Amino acid sequence: MSNSLGKQFVITSFGESHGSLVGVIIDGCPAGLAVSEADIQHELDRRKPGISSITTPRREEDRVEFLAGVFNGYTTGAPICLAVWNRDVDSGEYEKARLLPRPGQADYTAGVKYGGFNDYRGGGRFSGRITAGFVMAGAVARKLLYAIGVEVLAHTVEIGGIAARPGEPDKIRETAAKNAVHCADAEATEKMIAAVEKAINEDDSLGGIIEGIALGLPVGLGEPVFGSVDAELSKALFAIPAVKGVEFGAGFKAARMKGSQNNDPFAIKDGRVVTTSNNAGGILGGISNGMPLVVRVAVKPTASIAREQPTVDIGKMKEATLAVKGRHDACIVPRAVVVVESMMAVTLCDLAIRAGLIPGVIK
Amino acid sequence: MSNSLGKQFVITSFGESHGSLVGVIIDGCPAGLAVSEADIQHELDRRKPGISSITTPRREEDRVEFLAGVFNGYTTGAPICLAVWNRDVDSGEYEKARLLPRPGQADYTAGVKYGGFNDYRGGGRFSGRITAGFVMAGAVARKLLYAIGVEVLAHTVEIGGIAARPGEPDKIRETAAKNAVHCADAEATEKMIAAVEKAINEDDSLGGIIEGIALGLPVGLGEPVFGSVDAELSKALFAIPAVKGVEFGAGFKAARMKGSQNNDPFAIKDGRVVTTSNNAGGILGGISNGMPLVVRVAVKPTASIAREQPTVDIGKMKEATLAVKGRHDACIVPRAVVVVESMMAVTLCDLAIRAGLIPGVIK
Amino acid sequence: MSNSLGKQFVITSFGESHGSLVGVIIDGCPAGLAVSEADIQHELDRRKPGISSITTPRREEDRVEFLAGVFNGYTTGAPICLAVWNRDVDSGEYEKARLLPRPGQADYTAGVKYGGFNDYRGGGRFSGRITAGFVMAGAVARKLLYAIGVEVLAHTVEIGGIAARPGEPDKIRETAAKNAVHCADAEATEKMIAAVEKAINEDDSLGGIIEGIALGLPVGLGEPVFGSVDAELSKALFAIPAVKGVEFGAGFKAARMKGSQNNDPFAIKDGRVVTTSNNAGGILGGISNGMPLVVRVAVKPTASIAREQPTVDIGKMKEATLAVKGRHDACIVPRAVVVVESMMAVTLCDLAIRAGLIPGVIK
Amino acid sequence: MSNSLGKQFVITSFGESHGSLVGVIIDGCPAGLAVSEADIQHELDRRKPGISSITTPRREEDRVEFLAGVFNGYTTGAPICLAVWNRDVDSGEYEKARLLPRPGQADYTAGVKYGGFNDYRGGGRFSGRITAGFVMAGAVARKLLYAIGVEVLAHTVEIGGIAARPGEPDKIRETAAKNAVHCADAEATEKMIAAVEKAINEDDSLGGIIEGIALGLPVGLGEPVFGSVDAELSKALFAIPAVKGVEFGAGFKAARMKGSQNNDPFAIKDGRVVTTSNNAGGILGGISNGMPLVVRVAVKPTASIAREQPTVDIGKMKEATLAVKGRHDACIVPRAVVVVESMMAVTLCDLAIRAGLIPGVIK
Repeated sequence: MSNSLGKQFVITSFGESHGSLVGVIIDGCPAGLAVSEADIQHELDRRKPGISSITTPRREEDRVEFLAGVFNGYTTGAPICLAVWNRDVDSGEYEKARLLPRPGQADYTAGVKYGGFNDYRGGGRFSGRITAGFVMAGAVARKLLYAIGVEVLAHTVEIGGIAARPGEPDKIRETAAKNAVHCADAEATEKMIAAVEKAINEDDSLGGIIEGIALGLPVGLGEPVFGSVDAELSKALFAIPAVKGVEFGAGFKAARMKGSQNNDPFAIKDGRVVTTSNNAGGILGGISNGMPLVVRVAVKPTASIAREQPTVDIGKMKEATLAVKGRHDACIVPRAVVVVESMMAVTLCDLAIRAGLIPGVIK
Repeated sequence: MSNSLGKQFVITSFGESHGSLVGVIIDGCPAGLAVSEADIQHELDRRKPGISSITTPRREEDRVEFLAGVFNGYTTGAPICLAVWNRDVDSGEYEKARLLPRPGQADYTAGVKYGGFNDYRGGGRFSGRITAGFVMAGAVARKLLYAIGVEVLAHTVEIGGIAARPGEPDKIRETAAKNAVHCADAEATEKMIAAVEKAINEDDSLGGIIEGIALGLPVGLGEPVFGSVDAELSKALFAIPAVKGVEFGAGFKAARMKGSQNNDPFAIKDGRVVTTSNNAGGILGGISNGMPLVVRVAVKPTASIAREQPTVDIGKMKEATLAVKGRHDACIVPRAVVVVESMMAVTLCDLAIRAGLIPGVIK
Repeated sequence: MSNSLGKQFVITSFGESHGSLVGVIIDGCPAGLAVSEADIQHELDRRKPGISSITTPRREEDRVEFLAGVFNGYTTGAPICLAVWNRDVDSGEYEKARLLPRPGQADYTAGVKYGGFNDYRGGGRFSGRITAGFVMAGAVARKLLYAIGVEVLAHTVEIGGIAARPGEPDKIRETAAKNAVHCADAEATEKMIAAVEKAINEDDSLGGIIEGIALGLPVGLGEPVFGSVDAELSKALFAIPAVKGVEFGAGFKAARMKGSQNNDPFAIKDGRVVTTSNNAGGILGGISNGMPLVVRVAVKPTASIAREQPTVDIGKMKEATLAVKGRHDACIVPRAVVVVESMMAVTLCDLAIRAGLIPGVIK
Repeated sequence: MSNSLGKQFVITSFGESHGSLVGVIIDGCPAGLAVSEADIQHELDRRKPGISSITTPRREEDRVEFLAGVFNGYTTGAPICLAVWNRDVDSGEYEKARLLPRPGQADYTAGVKYGGFNDYRGGGRFSGRITAGFVMAGAVARKLLYAIGVEVLAHTVEIGGIAARPGEPDKIRETAAKNAVHCADAEATEKMIAAVEKAINEDDSLGGIIEGIALGLPVGLGEPVFGSVDAELSKALFAIPAVKGVEFGAGFKAARMKGSQNNDPFAIKDGRVVTTSNNAGGILGGISNGMPLVVRVAVKPTASIAREQPTVDIGKMKEATLAVKGRHDACIVPRAVVVVESMMAVTLCDLAIRAGLIPGVIK
């Protein structure tokens, strides 16, 4: 396994779904950043299930605990360790996963790779629950970015094929954070909620698309060729369970455009060089160009569905069926919004430090 | 800059478009692998322009030269250094790029980031030409993978909005390698060629989509969470200039499917666990599942077009226009096919070594 | 800060002397290794103070707690998180350190580097207490090495200028582990104890030298040039607070020998290639040669002494004096023996995995 | 193999003794640094053999060639590739090394590790010749350090047991650079030269000790715990072939001192905090403290001696003897002085960039 990400602002993820805790260590965070448990909790709460009719009734009372690296309310320069303890855990249902791997999950591959020693309860290390660690790290990263004028926002732009109309940052801040699907388009929101409710009734699940935006980035983040903004962000985003695609700016649509349409013309606005369109999604040659960074992330439908599915009995090596019981979100997209924001924040912090844009001590 | 990729099989890219050479170092390649200049040259030639009516008339006689790490026809365990020397270089046209950044290129961002000291000739370090190094590394990686029964294939599946029908591996091997657009669908090939010719006539350019496939992968590659197969591959693929999107298996389509459709059912075939569909693209929980690995890469249309485009004069800080002269591919997709294959091979080698699947000495 | 070490078997150290805990994460440990809390506790107890007349009367009841990565008594392949909670903490004395930096300690440099935000209580992140994390990681590493027939041993060879006679492995195992100074030479042991008692009475402190030995190493560990056995071990050993020198084999004495004396002649013994002397300390060209690996580590005298010392008042920028109160070991060498062993074990595990000598699943 | 060193200022070493070239890539060097071939050549020439009666008569006309990363006399931010081509190569003598491994060399361990595929000619990748790459990288690093007021100096302090009296920086700059043994003490110099001449006559060789000093370092370099100044420097220094020991400040002598002697008292001088002694060698808690950084490196006697030595015939697995012909330095210490300086410069650059002390563009 390889559970660390970043070069100068390095996060290390640890913990399992049904073990003692889920945590994260942040190494390389500058000293002097004010962080409170409330700052972290605020982001964690955005990931919380059970906040609407369409999320799992599981009550995860995730309370962040600071285990190291923060003293008198400020980061010290030492590694920061943040954790949430696991509670309300029911592992009974998962015993099956050992022998009847759930389709669309890591049960089978992890079982082979780790010789059956992997903690299979609740998906163990492969559970979406580990993203609580991502969110805690993201909460710190977000505060650091704020110190250099950068804001990271994400919102749901599609669920079950229902697409939202493009949303402005203000709208995203106001609306998306509050409604059950974290979508900035009120009309689409209603349809999305209805679609998820339908999926719940059909013992099925839905996927969707999340858009992440970073505002206020200076020109110059990104360490090409292999530390480019897009390379580093995509790596971080594909580490989120259920992500199957990542695109920047016009993304796959750019493949269908002509050069004359896709090239963003340069212009001057308020004495600054800008582009008049943003098909590049804020990245040229792997380096931020000062325009909003725009990334879209495809999230597959939740793999755990109550419907019966074909699988195999690994012990007997014969075909079998499985209906996944337990409490699962029929659509993980709304809860993943803050996770996308978090991984963006973590990666942009690392790149900003690497580019010399964040000092070693925050004042 | 950050020009190394990988953890155990590490490539370091160097060189510029109009400097002395373009090269690559491979560190961590097992000893005892037979490699000849012909092996490398064969892959390099697939990247060569000037092989058809639709590629640039530039004649890049890229001859690989072994500078280190190979002795008596075998790798020695030492770092392998491979290079192609630059010839047929005409830097005159590029002087402009200093002050009139080309839209869709790195001229502007690199100029700001490196304080104007970057080598701007031919895009310098940001030129597509650096992918010659990727291809040389890929040629070695491909031979290593072959030793464990893994084959990597790529082909063009879309150009200018013209999509190819799905292609079988045999078809890809036979057809795609030979035609001008590296597409396995003869009918689509003709249309794609016509579309590119039209773009040339209109002083414009086209993008497209490349599909990469890895066959024969064992279960167990991938080091979750941050060294997962998808995270590592996406990072490598986004380092290819002009790539704007990466998706695995059903990719963005998965976002529109229901769980019951998207989950790949497990079954047993010839005594092995398989899935009866492959929406996962061969990856579960970031680990290879033994099915074909499938990735699709969106390539934007070539930014350098002869048509006049709005830009800014950086010196005078006022708006201006620019028509990019020089010899550019109107569609880079066909030449990028071998680059996608190469970055896949390099990344899969690294993951295979990290998973203990390739020994330290090949026999 | 940079708190991770290793490439494939990676430890991340976290926690502070007077914070909540001191811990370590091990990422990359193969699955299937049996580890119990007793295994870890056994090593931790060897580091415990208060076990003899010459160590600090502080009672650190360090009980290891498994927070992640172990399930049903076996490693799972997931990151292992081990911690000891801090108790019996008295931070009062340390308030001074903010303004009156203790000579020979990190107070001054950390204060400048982290802008005064560092946790100064008990030295915070710079306390010898963080080596509890090293020891916990070492306990796991040691079990892994054992699985491939490698044993790591350390013993005190000098304290306060009193040198022990060379000790054989059997002697070290039997004697060194038990006596108060962890020395295999009974006669020297008595003198060392007397010397430390004298230092205590004089409000002073002593340093010494620890020798580490690894037995059973196969030929081939080490990834030259920068991942050589000596380069990697020295890096790990200099991370132990108070270490000021590291030498392999004949070490500094080799500088005074002739080539004809220092070169270890090759010979054949029991069908194996051996050397008839071991001035190389088991390393040729940065690679293990199958002979015992021998390293010696110089440990400076404890910096915290009750005697009055000159320092400066950082607030007033004027000279001052300081007598360090608190409970400190007058000689840290005996407690550092297990720390040296641990860092050796951790580093050798990493190198063994990198060389393909430890499989991904232990059976 | 693992041939890259550093995190932000990363050098990658490549090439073999009797291959095409020896080279180095520097990745992460800020843009805008003026570097000329003369700058590099000046340092390379200090490593040159044949400059006195006591070095090998081999005439290595090492001319640096810039292959990438420098444009119009300035670094561009792109990876810098520097090389010297191999000439005057006589590989005949080395064929033996395959079957009769030279005592004290890597022939045996490399042969086993790389399955006999290693380039054994002249020691191949294990030759001291690869340090030409270290010196080229060091020449660039040195210029960067100069830009922030840091100077790195090294000199010979012992050869064959003959110790020099302590040397002041001025003396080192003036004298050590010029005489045949790079020693700042004229009296010791004569004795050292005589000792080396005697060793040559006896077909034997001598080792020695080199002291490296860095002046002008600000407080704050070093990323504890594993990126501390001492940990990183020791790793870099042990990568130099023949180095068997590294110590900082009082080093092994500190092990014999009392705390009250070894602790460096703080004082104020010219409004700055200083220490009145420097047993710490400029490092407290792994962080530079503003005093001169002092490191000493033990170099073993040259392993290649013309005298007959016992070895084994690997093919027949029986004991044999070997006299190493060829042109070898009887004492490598003088030529290693600039190599020690270079590795210090490279490491301190990396740490300075990591600490935010060197900007991304030099002006």
